[in-house]
Amino acid sequence: MTSLPAGPGPTHLPPALPEGALRVVALGGIGEVGRNMTVFEYDGRLLIVDCGVLFPEDDQPGVDLILPDFRAIEDRLDDIDGLVLTHGHEDHIGAVPFLLRLRPDVPIYGSRFTNALLAAKAKEHRQRPKLIEVREGEKRKVGAFDLEFFAVNHSIPDALAVAIRTPAGVVLHTGDIKLDQLPLDGRLTDLAGFSRLGDEGVDLFCVDSTNAEVPGFVMPERDIGPVLDDVIRRVDQRVIVACFASHVHRVQQVLDAAVRHGRRVAFVGRSMVRNMGIAAELGLLNVPDGLLVDLDQASNLPESKVLFVSTGSQGEPLSALSRMARGEHRQISIRAGDTVVLASSMIPGNETAVFGVVNGLTRLGANVVHQGNAKVHVSGHASAGELLYLYNAVRPSNVMPVHGEWKHLRANGELAIRTGVAPDNVVIAEDGVVVDLVDGKASRTGRVEVGHVYVDGLSVGDVGESTLSDRLVLGEGGFIAITVAVDSNTGRAVSSPTISGRGFSDDPKALDAVVPLVEMELARTEAEGITDTHRIAQAVRRVVGRWVADTYRRRPMIVPTVIPV
Amino acid sequence: MTSLPAGPGPTHLPPALPEGALRVVALGGIGEVGRNMTVFEYDGRLLIVDCGVLFPEDDQPGVDLILPDFRAIEDRLDDIDGLVLTHGHEDHIGAVPFLLRLRPDVPIYGSRFTNALLAAKAKEHRQRPKLIEVREGEKRKVGAFDLEFFAVNHSIPDALAVAIRTPAGVVLHTGDIKLDQLPLDGRLTDLAGFSRLGDEGVDLFCVDSTNAEVPGFVMPERDIGPVLDDVIRRVDQRVIVACFASHVHRVQQVLDAAVRHGRRVAFVGRSMVRNMGIAAELGLLNVPDGLLVDLDQASNLPESKVLFVSTGSQGEPLSALSRMARGEHRQISIRAGDTVVLASSMIPGNETAVFGVVNGLTRLGANVVHQGNAKVHVSGHASAGELLYLYNAVRPSNVMPVHGEWKHLRANGELAIRTGVAPDNVVIAEDGVVVDLVDGKASRTGRVEVGHVYVDGLSVGDVGESTLSDRLVLGEGGFIAITVAVDSNTGRAVSSPTISGRGFSDDPKALDAVVPLVEMELARTEAEGITDTHRIAQAVRRVVGRWVADTYRRRPMIVPTVIPV
Repeated sequence: MTSLPAGPGPTHLPPALPEGALRVVALGGIGEVGRNMTVFEYDGRLLIVDCGVLFPEDDQPGVDLILPDFRAIEDRLDDIDGLVLTHGHEDHIGAVPFLLRLRPDVPIYGSRFTNALLAAKAKEHRQRPKLIEVREGEKRKVGAFDLEFFAVNHSIPDALAVAIRTPAGVVLHTGDIKLDQLPLDGRLTDLAGFSRLGDEGVDLFCVDSTNAEVPGFVMPERDIGPVLDDVIRRVDQRVIVACFASHVHRVQQVLDAAVRHGRRVAFVGRSMVRNMGIAAELGLLNVPDGLLVDLDQASNLPESKVLFVSTGSQGEPLSALSRMARGEHRQISIRAGDTVVLASSMIPGNETAVFGVVNGLTRLGANVVHQGNAKVHVSGHASAGELLYLYNAVRPSNVMPVHGEWKHLRANGELAIRTGVAPDNVVIAEDGVVVDLVDGKASRTGRVEVGHVYVDGLSVGDVGESTLSDRLVLGEGGFIAITVAVDSNTGRAVSSPTISGRGFSDDPKALDAVVPLVEMELARTEAEGITDTHRIAQAVRRVVGRWVADTYRRRPMIVPTVIPV
Repeated sequence: MTSLPAGPGPTHLPPALPEGALRVVALGGIGEVGRNMTVFEYDGRLLIVDCGVLFPEDDQPGVDLILPDFRAIEDRLDDIDGLVLTHGHEDHIGAVPFLLRLRPDVPIYGSRFTNALLAAKAKEHRQRPKLIEVREGEKRKVGAFDLEFFAVNHSIPDALAVAIRTPAGVVLHTGDIKLDQLPLDGRLTDLAGFSRLGDEGVDLFCVDSTNAEVPGFVMPERDIGPVLDDVIRRVDQRVIVACFASHVHRVQQVLDAAVRHGRRVAFVGRSMVRNMGIAAELGLLNVPDGLLVDLDQASNLPESKVLFVSTGSQGEPLSALSRMARGEHRQISIRAGDTVVLASSMIPGNETAVFGVVNGLTRLGANVVHQGNAKVHVSGHASAGELLYLYNAVRPSNVMPVHGEWKHLRANGELAIRTGVAPDNVVIAEDGVVVDLVDGKASRTGRVEVGHVYVDGLSVGDVGESTLSDRLVLGEGGFIAITVAVDSNTGRAVSSPTISGRGFSDDPKALDAVVPLVEMELARTEAEGITDTHRIAQAVRRVVGRWVADTYRRRPMIVPTVIPV
């Protein structure tokens, strides 16, 4: 059924890079959706494309963000000629402040809107990055790399693809891309430019895989307008629209509909207010004078004259929309007959949270309009049909699917093969797999270590797999702590054991049997002449662990502390 | 947009039930998908329909199962005339053993297959329930209730709907239902019977809401056969099909396809082996002689001659399929070119786990066929189009949507209204809301308390909201335990504080600052003459909590133990 090179690729370190060859390695973003970061190396110099964050899954509890693994470049920071940002989404720019902690003066190349979003983020980190604005059509030499930028269409304005020319060949990296043929801002993905590059010859094509499994074509963003219009036209109470805080064109269509139906608009949520401010300032969002009101003004308007544009479309528990759904929002309480529109996708993993919000709103009597019952969302990523157009325009010699989990990467690779790319020239290279372009042929030559780097609160990297595995045990079963003071000469207990369980049971008597059990064990260890507190603790852990397994069939963490006095 | 009675319903206790009236209350299953259990009361007697379990969500860590809340009936166990089981799925029969602990001799009415599945489950609990077999078309008096059973079609054989006649009126409860017009076993949902009952007059119609939001009709189960056939025909390596262990008709079609392509079949997973044994024994599954092999035999067959039917379609981490995806299955290791078919739905909340399995299998080189890329699954629940047929056949006076979250219930209610049911006669009654049928009119008259009852290991109910909230804190941030022995007369520390953190940091030095901090605080409490261990512990918790918030911006649980010696 497939003729792709099988399996996850080599496990050994790569060989030295041959002279005149180009090396590519992803430190994040391939084999997952998030923390995109790809490093290109030519003649000892490095060029980085994107530097984003990944949001944690259920088996990474307590983690705020996951960063790309910088280890492969941390000894070579001075070799970096530049960092190219394809667009302003968190999974492409979110980790930049952490890279800048290692080297604050990395030259950063991005479009106007991308750089503005990064500047706002950097300000929160008290950083002043070295930002260089580039735009579509522009060519620019960055150290060892000759770059050319192309307009691409995505779910955020001002996105770019980048061509990277070195003597080893021409690489084209799409960034995140789709081919909306009727984009709201008229800024088409530059398929003509890609074709011209294809005429020249593209040696390696790095292609967005997110929707490679989805047949057909993404509907134009523009088609959402009439749907929103229809929803708003039919209601005479409040309307709340939730969408991504960076989706300027989606918000534009909401504003346009509000204007048509005589509603004033209030933005809800910090990132929505901030990003729409930036977009309006740069002329990317058209806000008629007098349209916007603040939340207090909004609550004084008649219900039929107001529309809220809110964050929280992914069911984030602390977001404005989630608080409304729980009846806990300070300023907006949902009333029967209110209409809530989730003009957004459902990111895999967020389903339960989003459904929770939908059910909460419905329970309070709101009518909830979402992707499942109305065409209020289109994806920002090319479907299979569009990807075929891309392959046929570029006609690459080698293809490296990026931005996706394994199922997406492989589906994308199959599409490349169907357009005529030699199966052997499609390289599926998950994070850390080294791809070398030598004499026009790309292949997987080795692997560098790429792990998960966790941000939890203020610190980076001190929470690792061992801490997470403890959290999973504690989260499933809680703990039972047993504390006892012993005479360090005789090993005799000088206090009665103190037992405390948390996350184990609501029953205050649940652990009553533990004290006599531990006392008996301590009598035994004393009788055997054991004075080593570590050995005593081990004995206590063993008897309590066995007791809890037999009595409850549970596995809380057992935490004995033996204090020598 | 809607004319349904708004909001979640009354919060006060219900009034006394008027003479000649019928009371209905769900102790589970309404406002959620799972733990279905509805109690009907007439003239002081109770009839229960279904008694299932709910599987926990992320915010209920460590919980194995959630039971219906029996409190509303636990003082009235002798009033129960019977328990009717509509079919054998876990969310309809899984809590029966827990009800039988309260009263072992509750008469249980179910179809042959349902009773056989329950008997197997009861055996594991060392129970011998009083099972009475009923079948479609049968009428039976059960105490104060005159019952009539109707064949219905679902994703498990031998499902029933039940009509409940009392002098208060006629109730029809669908159980789980769809209207496959070409069912594999020829056993149609008895729409003719429903119409006849409609002629007689149905006062209250309790209707499956699961797919009320989904437009149109569910495709016939039968149409999956050719798709499976097509997948298997094209491959010459191993085929692994995962589906629900109770979906006899799905498995039948897999077996039929295996026969056509000359493959032997091995069942993988305990529940698959057990349920298919029962189904074959009852003549519900047709297994040609010599088709089945065990796993050892299967591994000696040529790859093109074997097919595995496995559990694990929901990405359950311990299932056979998940172990294959991680490369950890003892007997089956996935090779490039193997084909895995997930002939199943994706239950909301399981998406991440299922995608994890798909990616793991793909990474190892398997071709994965699933609902997203082939028609290998159809739902067991009626879509909106089918529900309209039901409403038009039954023509009920009152409607009570069951089996669903709020969004499903409300969508179902809207469908009822569109077929002509008076909006005021559609009652949305989440768990605990009491519905009284008085003089032919159903309304929400009050509420009894219905909470979550958690099973964790061997015990029921001792894990409650406080334990779960501790587990969530521990799972997010771990804990820091501080132990110190103090002289109970002077309040003076007689040992150096012992600090241990689990689930906090991988860095062994992360808590180095805590000992001097605590020592300083102990010096302070001693100086202030504080000898009460509880007050000393509080002081320690406060300083350590503040330190960790300032230093790390995290919130581990702080667990101080002060031992008086």
